[in-house]
Amino acid sequence: MSSPVYIGIDVMGGDYFPEAPIEGALLAKDHMPDGSAIVLVGNETIIQNYFKQRGMKNPFKILPAPQYITMDENPAKAVKAKPQSSIHIGLKALKEGKLKGFVSAGNTGAVVVASVLILEPIEGVLRPTIGLIYPEMLGNRKFLLCDVGANIDCKPEILAHFACLGSIFMKTIYGIERPSVALLNIGEEEGKGNQQTKQAYQLLKQMKNIHFIGNIEGRDLNHNPADVVVCDGFIGNIILKYGESFYSVLKSRLDASDPFLQKFNFSRVGGLPLIGVNGNVLIGHGISGPEAFKNMLISAATYHQLGLLQAIRNQIHQFNRSS
Amino acid sequence: MSSPVYIGIDVMGGDYFPEAPIEGALLAKDHMPDGSAIVLVGNETIIQNYFKQRGMKNPFKILPAPQYITMDENPAKAVKAKPQSSIHIGLKALKEGKLKGFVSAGNTGAVVVASVLILEPIEGVLRPTIGLIYPEMLGNRKFLLCDVGANIDCKPEILAHFACLGSIFMKTIYGIERPSVALLNIGEEEGKGNQQTKQAYQLLKQMKNIHFIGNIEGRDLNHNPADVVVCDGFIGNIILKYGESFYSVLKSRLDASDPFLQKFNFSRVGGLPLIGVNGNVLIGHGISGPEAFKNMLISAATYHQLGLLQAIRNQIHQFNRSS
Repeated sequence: MSSPVYIGIDVMGGDYFPEAPIEGALLAKDHMPDGSAIVLVGNETIIQNYFKQRGMKNPFKILPAPQYITMDENPAKAVKAKPQSSIHIGLKALKEGKLKGFVSAGNTGAVVVASVLILEPIEGVLRPTIGLIYPEMLGNRKFLLCDVGANIDCKPEILAHFACLGSIFMKTIYGIERPSVALLNIGEEEGKGNQQTKQAYQLLKQMKNIHFIGNIEGRDLNHNPADVVVCDGFIGNIILKYGESFYSVLKSRLDASDPFLQKFNFSRVGGLPLIGVNGNVLIGHGISGPEAFKNMLISAATYHQLGLLQAIRNQIHQFNRSS
Repeated sequence: MSSPVYIGIDVMGGDYFPEAPIEGALLAKDHMPDGSAIVLVGNETIIQNYFKQRGMKNPFKILPAPQYITMDENPAKAVKAKPQSSIHIGLKALKEGKLKGFVSAGNTGAVVVASVLILEPIEGVLRPTIGLIYPEMLGNRKFLLCDVGANIDCKPEILAHFACLGSIFMKTIYGIERPSVALLNIGEEEGKGNQQTKQAYQLLKQMKNIHFIGNIEGRDLNHNPADVVVCDGFIGNIILKYGESFYSVLKSRLDASDPFLQKFNFSRVGGLPLIGVNGNVLIGHGISGPEAFKNMLISAATYHQLGLLQAIRNQIHQFNRSS
């Protein structure tokens, strides 16, 4: 019998730790893909006390981490100052192959900085990207919006590179043979946009392995216009946070159980893949609740099962050459 | 008896011309500020035929314009090629003082280009800006988001300049003594952002006449966080179109008459002020219906009545000096 595929969860991250991640792990336990198991990464005493208070035995392995990074610490400084944080310990285990996936709803900047430092980008990846799996709104499919915060100032070449990473992701995880790619812009016609998007358009047009369908506008996002939509991390992050804030706006008008409303509920559906590093990392929203953690754990195991890292390793050079 | 204050309406603009602008003028007729009257700008035959078909006498003056610019023409080319368009005729009458305001739901780019060309920026204004008067969502006040499309690539100084124009606008039109100004960004702390917003933050902080309250994030927009929120026209335009698309998303769940839903309905509430040129210009959404045109006409007359142009002329130098 082969040893299980271990997926780590950062028990010290998010606004509601340790409760939300531990309860998420308990929720996910019986729904993980066959052969995978969950490992709790964090302060052992806090974890054991939680189970004690809950009156149950801890069913998970623990990867002890004496330190943790708070939500409002400066990412670069915290990553340097706390080498024994739950984020570090989890990512190091991922690097060494002891874990096959790691999920954290902790300090997003710290997770990104530490991932790039410890896991390093996959060979051929210029910049790893954080993707948002945008829910079906008026369209009938999910799509990947990237980048939503890992790369704030982006040259046009980097936007084109996100198209490669996004295409490999959607092909590998969603089984879409030739994912369509759109560029987020302020007009549909070629020639519209700022300097960055005008140049990115020209690059994308020339890339043979990218199924580029042109520009889309802000209003098109809710129509789910392509399989991958690329933008820089500045605008992507503003779109991410603006979009999710409609949940608060709508909560006053719609019943809490309304499935329509729940599409906007990032405390349940959260989990942003960090694409392009040597490890399956999912970043949760600070407000992630147990259900979000459950979904992140299953996603991380699924990414491993579907061979996301190997797909990027195999295909990124071919995409890079296509321009 | 003094002659009326004439406000022009572009009858040849928008997706539903001439019906929507003419019906809007009829709706507005008895609600205009005292002493103001509406002038229809456009093709005389089309206008007369419309009233004939409607079985009524035209109650408005007409400013004839033999040409018109379509919604999908290249703005710069069309402005050059059609000097007798309804947009040109209206703006020239504004320039000459025959009109005191002009509203159009035509080709936005063409209205901006022609306004800058014909009316010219007010002395001291570096770049005129298009503002969105953002509706009350979770907050309890409207605010001005600018720029939403007039200036696509902006240096940090231009963002700071929008803060000046926006502050004068909110003080003059909404009577707010010391309007608060926020910078749209990806984090609240000083030092967050891309190169542009990091530098703009430093400029805004130093401007004595600007009541700068710092960065806001995408999620804060629906909480109506300040009186003025500044961003470049690229991100502002994407936010404008993304935000308004939630109307289509919500229409499937909420009753059409729901006042909550109507906040998102840009076919009714439209009208973006072009701030900083020598004339009161309001730009409507292409899908503007009669109610949007009515509101735009009343707004243009109100801007004149409250002395918006004079306020900008008087105050812009003082704001510019404050940095």
